Amino acid sequence: MAKKKIAARKAPRNGDKNAPPADGIRKAAFDLFARQGFPITTVRDIMHACGLTQGALYNHFSSKDELLASIIIQTQDELERELRQALAGIGADATGQLREYVRVHTLRHTRFRTEALVANREFGWLEPIKRSEVRASRRRVRDILIGILRRGEKEGAFALPAGEGRTDAKIVAMAILNMTTHVAQWFTSGGAFSDETVAALHAEMALRLAGAKR
Amino acid sequence: MAKKKIAARKAPRNGDKNAPPADGIRKAAFDLFARQGFPITTVRDIMHACGLTQGALYNHFSSKDELLASIIIQTQDELERELRQALAGIGADATGQLREYVRVHTLRHTRFRTEALVANREFGWLEPIKRSEVRASRRRVRDILIGILRRGEKEGAFALPAGEGRTDAKIVAMAILNMTTHVAQWFTSGGAFSDETVAALHAEMALRLAGAKR
Repeated sequence: MAKKKIAARKAPRNGDKNAPPADGIRKAAFDLFARQGFPITTVRDIMHACGLTQGALYNHFSSKDELLASIIIQTQDELERELRQALAGIGADATGQLREYVRVHTLRHTRFRTEALVANREFGWLEPIKRSEVRASRRRVRDILIGILRRGEKEGAFALPAGEGRTDAKIVAMAILNMTTHVAQWFTSGGAFSDETVAALHAEMALRLAGAKR
Repeated sequence: MAKKKIAARKAPRNGDKNAPPADGIRKAAFDLFARQGFPITTVRDIMHACGLTQGALYNHFSSKDELLASIIIQTQDELERELRQALAGIGADATGQLREYVRVHTLRHTRFRTEALVANREFGWLEPIKRSEVRASRRRVRDILIGILRRGEKEGAFALPAGEGRTDAKIVAMAILNMTTHVAQWFTSGGAFSDETVAALHAEMALRLAGAKR
């Protein structure tokens, strides 16, 4: 995001012509929202960037607002679906589930950095109904993690940190979600560690936070 | 932040008349930037909210941009100064220093939630020179933490998590900073725990992340 507008990049002519136009529009919008922010990005900028006419937007989205909602909701839905799938594929062991949850959550934020940054920063521009929809999915994602932490504690696999003599799985869950979500702010591929290693390191850190007995 | 502008609140007539006007302007700006975002907040909104004439802004700030820079830099400076003071006041023990660093960092983000949210979300609107200035302070704040982690590891007080056979104090530092910074997003006073307890819980979690031997 910069104060002055950056000239929009036109999609390369040899881009994937078979991709549905709505996907191309979403991708261009993500890129522009990331670089210059939602408020000053115009429909014109977006359509120019993906090589379509300005009017073509309205074949797919009713407005720029709806486009923002569409991409944030899609990103959030994919995160939720991916987490559920990953957890369904492994056993009931809380330690294994926590490791897998954090691995997948971290990888989503290293592999879809732009999407994560836009979804978090521009979230406030969503219309109230859409905002509630995203919040509900975020809550479900968080509650899966809280569920794993509580079950692990009950089964004696975890010893959660205590404050004022009692534990709070929600605070531990928020700490884990914040450290993995904001990996998107510093991770660069080609850095000291691969994304898989960064994800494994975060899984290890989450197990430490939860006081996993190993 | 909402899509539509919210009517600015006028400062109460019995407000602190002895406070320097620049402080009142900063406070009103913070409040408005928090509720509706920097891009759509006008100088008129800000000056109306603090009960001053529009022109009075220019006795203190050259522009709305400079006002944003002033409040973000002031917040960041205070955080850095507070951390340095707190650390200077305790011993050289790495475990004690980590605990104190995280306690102070968390409290800054529970007690100055609005400032933290605005500083993080609107950071991208800063002019490049101001942005570099804030980044440099953020880097110094992070480097103090990295220093504590490295020293603790060297002295055998910490066992940092390893990825690909080596440890990385920077990744642990980012995890700690992200979990404490983003407390600002969920903390409400009057919730299940006091801010002091939330800070102590985060200090405990940071010690776990670092693998502090106790």
